[in-house]
Amino acid sequence: MELIEYIESRRDEHLKELVEFLRIPSVSAQSEHKPDIERAARWVAEQLRGAGLENVTITPTNMHPLVYGESLGAKGKPTILFYGHYDVQPAEPLDLWTSAAFEPTVRDGNLFARGSADDKGQVHIHIKALEALRKTLGQLPINVKVMIEGEEEVGSVNLWEFVRGNRERLKADALVVSDTSMLAKGAPSITYGLRGLNYYQIEITGPRQDLHSGVFGGAAPNPITILAETIAKLHDKNFQVAIPGFYADVAALSREERKALASLPWKEKEFRATVGAPGLGGEKGYTIIEQLWTRPTLELNGIWGGYTGEGAKTVIPSKAYAKFSTRLVPNQDPTKVAKLVERQIGKLLPKTVTAKFEVLSTGKPWVAAYTHPIFQKAIQALEAGFGKRAVFIREGGSIPFVTQMHDTFKIPCVLMGFGLPDENAHAPDEHIALENYFGGIKSVALFYAGLADMQ
Amino acid sequence: MELIEYIESRRDEHLKELVEFLRIPSVSAQSEHKPDIERAARWVAEQLRGAGLENVTITPTNMHPLVYGESLGAKGKPTILFYGHYDVQPAEPLDLWTSAAFEPTVRDGNLFARGSADDKGQVHIHIKALEALRKTLGQLPINVKVMIEGEEEVGSVNLWEFVRGNRERLKADALVVSDTSMLAKGAPSITYGLRGLNYYQIEITGPRQDLHSGVFGGAAPNPITILAETIAKLHDKNFQVAIPGFYADVAALSREERKALASLPWKEKEFRATVGAPGLGGEKGYTIIEQLWTRPTLELNGIWGGYTGEGAKTVIPSKAYAKFSTRLVPNQDPTKVAKLVERQIGKLLPKTVTAKFEVLSTGKPWVAAYTHPIFQKAIQALEAGFGKRAVFIREGGSIPFVTQMHDTFKIPCVLMGFGLPDENAHAPDEHIALENYFGGIKSVALFYAGLADMQ
Repeated sequence: MELIEYIESRRDEHLKELVEFLRIPSVSAQSEHKPDIERAARWVAEQLRGAGLENVTITPTNMHPLVYGESLGAKGKPTILFYGHYDVQPAEPLDLWTSAAFEPTVRDGNLFARGSADDKGQVHIHIKALEALRKTLGQLPINVKVMIEGEEEVGSVNLWEFVRGNRERLKADALVVSDTSMLAKGAPSITYGLRGLNYYQIEITGPRQDLHSGVFGGAAPNPITILAETIAKLHDKNFQVAIPGFYADVAALSREERKALASLPWKEKEFRATVGAPGLGGEKGYTIIEQLWTRPTLELNGIWGGYTGEGAKTVIPSKAYAKFSTRLVPNQDPTKVAKLVERQIGKLLPKTVTAKFEVLSTGKPWVAAYTHPIFQKAIQALEAGFGKRAVFIREGGSIPFVTQMHDTFKIPCVLMGFGLPDENAHAPDEHIALENYFGGIKSVALFYAGLADMQ
Repeated sequence: MELIEYIESRRDEHLKELVEFLRIPSVSAQSEHKPDIERAARWVAEQLRGAGLENVTITPTNMHPLVYGESLGAKGKPTILFYGHYDVQPAEPLDLWTSAAFEPTVRDGNLFARGSADDKGQVHIHIKALEALRKTLGQLPINVKVMIEGEEEVGSVNLWEFVRGNRERLKADALVVSDTSMLAKGAPSITYGLRGLNYYQIEITGPRQDLHSGVFGGAAPNPITILAETIAKLHDKNFQVAIPGFYADVAALSREERKALASLPWKEKEFRATVGAPGLGGEKGYTIIEQLWTRPTLELNGIWGGYTGEGAKTVIPSKAYAKFSTRLVPNQDPTKVAKLVERQIGKLLPKTVTAKFEVLSTGKPWVAAYTHPIFQKAIQALEAGFGKRAVFIREGGSIPFVTQMHDTFKIPCVLMGFGLPDENAHAPDEHIALENYFGGIKSVALFYAGLADMQ
């Protein structure tokens, strides 16, 4: 098969290019990386042109630019819209990386770098698949629209405005996204469900200024203690979220789905090893997979206050802060949940402090009706590209855009992920398995080629 | 009176010298300030020589040097040992200072700088009092031994070794310390009680590495949540410390002492204004003064973990940390309390995490028998120096050294403090009232002069 042979022959060049992409520290959350973000956008645009796309544009937004390109020459053939992101999570804590976050390094068949799995590596898979199709067929067998944003890790602030402003242009028969993980190595997967994400920050102020803990301790309200007591009241003893109404709209799991989830080739032992903690601590009454994919959570993502340096400082700080998030499942409404969270925190806080509560972002959950024939095409392409049986899974992470696109265009969304559960997305030593990167290029090329037959 | 006239005539020179002293950022907790610590020690030694002290030495220790000097020419007269410290607390958070921490600035009759009150300003008061006595009398009227350390803010690690190694040399009839506050402006005070201080740090490890809060959230143990839940269980609803045995050795307050404390010219309204919080949150069943001076506490001094930067990061961190301390009162034993704290935290932590518990320092509480005549001399000198009625008070802070000296030498300890409750020791905008600085020099000079009559 000429297509697969071509892709195989280009392995070194593909990897070299990906390394170049990963060297750009395109961290969207940190303003000092603004020039890197812009460099990454230009790099993506150049790649799209190289893959034969037309009308390639870099659209500035209020924050980070969005890259778009298209190829509409396959008359009468389906049109897919591919979405990805070129921005990455902050690399901190830097000292926990085995090799530097922005110095891509291959070890044991994995490529280590921030963004290798989430999502630059997966974006690159699609660009190379398109390029291979064009080089071997002379032109693309289907119509494609490619949209790569730079704000996914900070809540896709301006993406939706772009989509609304280009509704006609973006019209497609299906949305394709690769920003998820496979169930396990050797189990290529289509994800049919994602959790939603609300992200919050709270600032608690006790004393007007930092105080000496000897002179004032025992009478002045301590914002760290009060923050901790407030956080502690957000879960009950079964690790359910103790916010009235939080579970009111959660869709019950059908017996069929619980059965299907239980039969997946998922290895609890490997999951425990990846977590690497002495034990797990999830909601009582649900299997681990159910906890991760089908149940809402409230997780603390950061906490700080008082003296955190070397040695001792006997201070009662004026302020203490926390960042936390709720993962949401069908049919929870993010805005409603944010209000419930804010109300409960207001109730829990004592009158000795003031608080500032912020909702940094909201995002809806999503579950697909995967009966559409495109899902069968996708599963077949994965099985051919990897030479393994492919499975349908859900995921605990969030891609707010998928939900929004699904709600707006009413088209099937195919989430074809090439990450792995132990890839350390958002953590030090993020990596992608080279077999998934190369298998991904083949699968995606076969998937796009196969869509040409679908009416 | 020649002594007082002399001191009055030197106001500008005294203040100028103090500003020079405060410009040296002698932060003992931060290793980058090691050269400043050494510069401060040399500065103090030079001042002691200028005040006419002999055998002035800078003794190196395993951490920061100790400065010693003496004047033993007053045959048959009492000997006092003066103790102070030239090291200061870290200045962070720097952005909350109105003027820079190490650029001393006078505003509204106060001198603002890190160390102005705690304790460089008060050390300087004694040096200038001694210098004034020598300049006006030709020689000192009593024998003095002066010991100024550089590790008070990090637990006086090496001080005690120096004291043990120089037990004969340090022998004195009384210990004098100025490292405390007056009850209020215009109420010069002798402090007869201090709380002890144990300082702890805890590190909680859940996952082996940071994890994506979407992919792993709901099953992996979150060390921030667990730390918060643990902290929350360290107080009961009456804000008593919920550690079994914590109050077992606490001395009950006598009816007389409660009455004396209640009759002090202490203004609750001013205290509330200094704290500046919407309310106070102390232990039920005790007045605010009793909470601050006579009851043990557990205070959080710092907390950190996860993402604390700009924007959002959806992470479950591997680790979360807290620094906290217990203030102790008679007759609690610091070592016993440290064991109770460690045991209870061990009990509270779930098996899903591991923890590292450290005791950074321990320190005993102290209460004086102030019937000794030296206390009357001290009160008289304060009243003469300030022209105001002086009072006996206790304090919530800790000077471990006082307890140790009292236990070892069995001598009265006179704590003559010239700080004020709103001076912001350990916080941004630390300051000393100029009237207390200048009144302090006069009072201390009169106190030392008056001791010459005492047998």
